[in-house]
Amino acid sequence: MKLYSYFRSSASYRVRIALNLKGLPYEYVPVHLLRSGGEQLTAQYRKLNPDGLVPTLVDGDVTLQQSLAIVEYLEETRPEPPLLPRDPVDRAYVRAVAQQIACEIHPLDNLRVLRYLVHELGLSDEAKNGWYRHWIEAGFETLESRLSTERRVGKLAFGDEPTVADLCLVPQVFNAQRFKVDTARYPTIQRIYDYACGLDAFARAAPGAQPDAE
Amino acid sequence: MKLYSYFRSSASYRVRIALNLKGLPYEYVPVHLLRSGGEQLTAQYRKLNPDGLVPTLVDGDVTLQQSLAIVEYLEETRPEPPLLPRDPVDRAYVRAVAQQIACEIHPLDNLRVLRYLVHELGLSDEAKNGWYRHWIEAGFETLESRLSTERRVGKLAFGDEPTVADLCLVPQVFNAQRFKVDTARYPTIQRIYDYACGLDAFARAAPGAQPDAE
Repeated sequence: MKLYSYFRSSASYRVRIALNLKGLPYEYVPVHLLRSGGEQLTAQYRKLNPDGLVPTLVDGDVTLQQSLAIVEYLEETRPEPPLLPRDPVDRAYVRAVAQQIACEIHPLDNLRVLRYLVHELGLSDEAKNGWYRHWIEAGFETLESRLSTERRVGKLAFGDEPTVADLCLVPQVFNAQRFKVDTARYPTIQRIYDYACGLDAFARAAPGAQPDAE
Repeated sequence: MKLYSYFRSSASYRVRIALNLKGLPYEYVPVHLLRSGGEQLTAQYRKLNPDGLVPTLVDGDVTLQQSLAIVEYLEETRPEPPLLPRDPVDRAYVRAVAQQIACEIHPLDNLRVLRYLVHELGLSDEAKNGWYRHWIEAGFETLESRLSTERRVGKLAFGDEPTVADLCLVPQVFNAQRFKVDTARYPTIQRIYDYACGLDAFARAAPGAQPDAE
């Protein structure tokens, strides 16, 4: 398998964790989001990923886009170890946590959005960072209120074994800390993050451990 | 079943289509996103949905959030008719289309974001509408380039039977038209939309057909 990835991309980070958890080796192909106007926007890359986004996973003659669709594909084609619980209600819980991060928090804070705020709307760096923190904090507040009262939470978001929820949570916390959000204000999220980061599959997927890390 | 919904909410609209396609009757509970500061933000509603978002689906003693997690749950508990193909590669394609809309387009254009632009950043209505159109157009352009060359596309995004991709596409087109985006510029998207809107399950899920329609 081949993963087109950028070390700091949260969506790439999710898929790297999933591949590691499932013990699937892959070739890492760096796509630099900032260099030469964005390598993800070239015509050549867009043949693999029409959206011009990372990650893209190539599995034999199959080319896959969108991190959570890729993770569901891996789950269906390489079911062990599972990244979703067996019970449909538990699966819905895990997917809802993943999607709260992937649909409500992350899209507002990714690179192309922050760029639009500065270049098109003329926002100052301060206003841009305020935007960033606003959506992270709003999202983490509701996520914390949910996880702190959720009986399914163990060492991780669902019991003690990693699921799709954790592989969305960890990159989002990493990202928040990079923007100086005080994640200690969200003790359940912070505790899950700390525990997950100690696991080999998560540690090897971390931005700093990638070949294109700066 | 009970669906907490707002007639114009795209995420609610997705779940309404899924429930109709699967022939599942439900009680409609309107949650007015604009009235009295937003009924979705009350402490009472947040017990059902910590994020303060619609929709919420209550199925017996189970309470579910996040539209695509809800749809996957319905698919797993009421498999007929299927809203995902059988083959994992086809499923990944359908989910990627759904998520391109749900993760890349919709989150940037929902009510709370548009409000932040106006109330916190002081954007004019013109700049706000420019923002809205920018993300819709960027997203629809790549979606159109994908669908127009995709061999799986039939009358709908995957062959001729409705899938999760269509139930994300239709509300997003409806929403775009409300904001005066010329969707005829995206002929494949427009054609799928027109065909889907003629199907009973989609027509009954349309915003104008809901009890809280204004």
